[in-house]
Amino acid sequence: MKVLLAGFEPFGGETMNPAWEAIQRLPKEILGAQLFKIQIPVSGQRALEKIYQMMKEEHPEIVIAIGQAGGRYGVTPERVALNIDDYGIPDNEGNQPVDATIFADGAPAYFSNLPVKDMVQAIRDAGYPASLSNSAGTYVCNHVMFGILYYLEKEFPDTGGGFIHVPYAACQVVQKSNTPSMSLLDIASAIEAAVRAAILQKKKSL
Amino acid sequence: MKVLLAGFEPFGGETMNPAWEAIQRLPKEILGAQLFKIQIPVSGQRALEKIYQMMKEEHPEIVIAIGQAGGRYGVTPERVALNIDDYGIPDNEGNQPVDATIFADGAPAYFSNLPVKDMVQAIRDAGYPASLSNSAGTYVCNHVMFGILYYLEKEFPDTGGGFIHVPYAACQVVQKSNTPSMSLLDIASAIEAAVRAAILQKKKSL
Amino acid sequence: MKVLLAGFEPFGGETMNPAWEAIQRLPKEILGAQLFKIQIPVSGQRALEKIYQMMKEEHPEIVIAIGQAGGRYGVTPERVALNIDDYGIPDNEGNQPVDATIFADGAPAYFSNLPVKDMVQAIRDAGYPASLSNSAGTYVCNHVMFGILYYLEKEFPDTGGGFIHVPYAACQVVQKSNTPSMSLLDIASAIEAAVRAAILQKKKSL
Amino acid sequence: MKVLLAGFEPFGGETMNPAWEAIQRLPKEILGAQLFKIQIPVSGQRALEKIYQMMKEEHPEIVIAIGQAGGRYGVTPERVALNIDDYGIPDNEGNQPVDATIFADGAPAYFSNLPVKDMVQAIRDAGYPASLSNSAGTYVCNHVMFGILYYLEKEFPDTGGGFIHVPYAACQVVQKSNTPSMSLLDIASAIEAAVRAAILQKKKSL
Repeated sequence: MKVLLAGFEPFGGETMNPAWEAIQRLPKEILGAQLFKIQIPVSGQRALEKIYQMMKEEHPEIVIAIGQAGGRYGVTPERVALNIDDYGIPDNEGNQPVDATIFADGAPAYFSNLPVKDMVQAIRDAGYPASLSNSAGTYVCNHVMFGILYYLEKEFPDTGGGFIHVPYAACQVVQKSNTPSMSLLDIASAIEAAVRAAILQKKKSL
Repeated sequence: MKVLLAGFEPFGGETMNPAWEAIQRLPKEILGAQLFKIQIPVSGQRALEKIYQMMKEEHPEIVIAIGQAGGRYGVTPERVALNIDDYGIPDNEGNQPVDATIFADGAPAYFSNLPVKDMVQAIRDAGYPASLSNSAGTYVCNHVMFGILYYLEKEFPDTGGGFIHVPYAACQVVQKSNTPSMSLLDIASAIEAAVRAAILQKKKSL
Repeated sequence: MKVLLAGFEPFGGETMNPAWEAIQRLPKEILGAQLFKIQIPVSGQRALEKIYQMMKEEHPEIVIAIGQAGGRYGVTPERVALNIDDYGIPDNEGNQPVDATIFADGAPAYFSNLPVKDMVQAIRDAGYPASLSNSAGTYVCNHVMFGILYYLEKEFPDTGGGFIHVPYAACQVVQKSNTPSMSLLDIASAIEAAVRAAILQKKKSL
Repeated sequence: MKVLLAGFEPFGGETMNPAWEAIQRLPKEILGAQLFKIQIPVSGQRALEKIYQMMKEEHPEIVIAIGQAGGRYGVTPERVALNIDDYGIPDNEGNQPVDATIFADGAPAYFSNLPVKDMVQAIRDAGYPASLSNSAGTYVCNHVMFGILYYLEKEFPDTGGGFIHVPYAACQVVQKSNTPSMSLLDIASAIEAAVRAAILQKKKSL
């Protein structure tokens, strides 16, 4: 089995992105499944192109993109992506779409077909704070999640896809007052637990 | 040099206390100073007796008590202790004093004579969130901090004394929503950085 | 013009619901539009039936349901409703659906066709905190919002529909620590400003 | 009976201060006691001089200063003031003392001799969020509270003195995300309830 993990580069003035930092700290294999790790740019279109390219080349059974959601207290698998771009700040290429449809022939929303509640429980069982999120926002993270699920519906119906948001790493909040964070190693372990849960369910369904 | 580190046992329904868990993970020596680690009960009087006994026996140059302050986002050295007990919940022996003076012959408040701002900076330099706290509350933590500083004034004027509050460990907030936490290992590293700063300043002053 | 405002009864152990309390404090008319005010039960099905009945009888040009979202800091018009019931607690009739589709022939999500950003701006211009929300949750509030927009699509394509979440009223947080709230009168004024913005846009489009 | 209420002018980039705005909205008398209302500058020394002058001229039985504590969720009577100036930002005259003693012949701290718990309860009974605060910070607010209690001890031992912190008014957080606030009218009513409780206790003690 192949699992594609895509983590964002830094944005919003940060010098690192805990999503990509955490992915790099994961092993090469989990439960016998091979992990493909790619860094994606904070540009909806380019990030999606990179993921789509990997999906066509490697045909992973599971695709999970991971991004930073500063201000959250734990690791939050996302339930659903919306067919809308409404960026509060420009992406790293300077684009800032407002109330724009992502794919004209896409559904208004796609629900992740990953076992998101199992993933939350797996993270908690591993000892880390987690909860199910009902909103991936309307920024690049939502764009990428929506795009993955759009491609799954159109071209890869047997693939599992979803998105996980992670809090700031502890080192990012040193100068921020009253901002929650997690250890980078804990974020990595939490993601590993979530990926494990996704792999387990996929194995059962095969 | 000897450094006494006193960490509380669990209270308030928790099964662990990150303060004591973190102390146990510290090395035996920091910068050549020997660490004496003791667990103290969540009882103002008994905790203080235990610390006072160690102070008389070992004559540490530095005494730091460490407690859990659930809800805080980072590690917070305390600036000052108040001469008041006003417990919101009973301590682990069932005592719940209200608006009671701790020591009738004590000052209304004692400021820590540790380099609390250096300690905050040292924790941040190590990559962990920290800030200086102006209130240790009016529970057992404040009682112990006040008692330590009271004994310093009365009997050990050359000793440095203070208190550090730490957030919940990540594993404690798994079932709590929107509650900040830190990794236990990060808490331990943050305390080590703070203790190091206290030792450095004490060495300069000797 | 007719505007239907539906506010929830209390739930979750509260003795009042600021949504309904605020609606009652609104005038009978805004900008010449007549307000129809109804209280709806915290039961997805029954609340929706009551609103649907009013829509068939009165043919309002605008339908807005209003509910309490304890923990929010300001008044939050909702952007989108999801085709899912996933109740964290039972509704007031004891029902607690999990991961259930609301309408099998509905879209995965419906975006409100009200001018939600204008409504946010109007509330701010009136001097109250407001922001656009991207998640109405997966409880009764989302059920009702989804149902309204479902009926608009199927039967009332020219009607405007949406949902506004309001914070706790100040009197509800007297015993809750560190919980944001707004004055009931301010909540009412904020809703009035939002309704006014919705009416203005509807008048332009007629 | 005379009650002196001193409320701060705006600071920190704000165009209004809810403390002074609320004081202006109080009646001229409460329970037969005459209210003297003065605005004080955000300068520790000058604010204190103005209050001290009024104390010598009018001999009020109660002196309460009121200030803004942005970020708090309710109205918070202060329990204690510390003999330290440690300003995080300059005051409105550009002064920024660091770790400075306020009065060399003052105590390390003074506890308010107002019935602070009765005041909290009175605010709650009136329907507004309130809690007892154990820290007035180390900025101008603490300076003024400390100074008032210092003068009480030295010159006016029969006078009651204290400090109340209030949250942002709703209109101040329109552009701030996730920041708690209260209605200005509610803040005024809460202060009135607190002042009433202070007057009641003072009448009993006379």
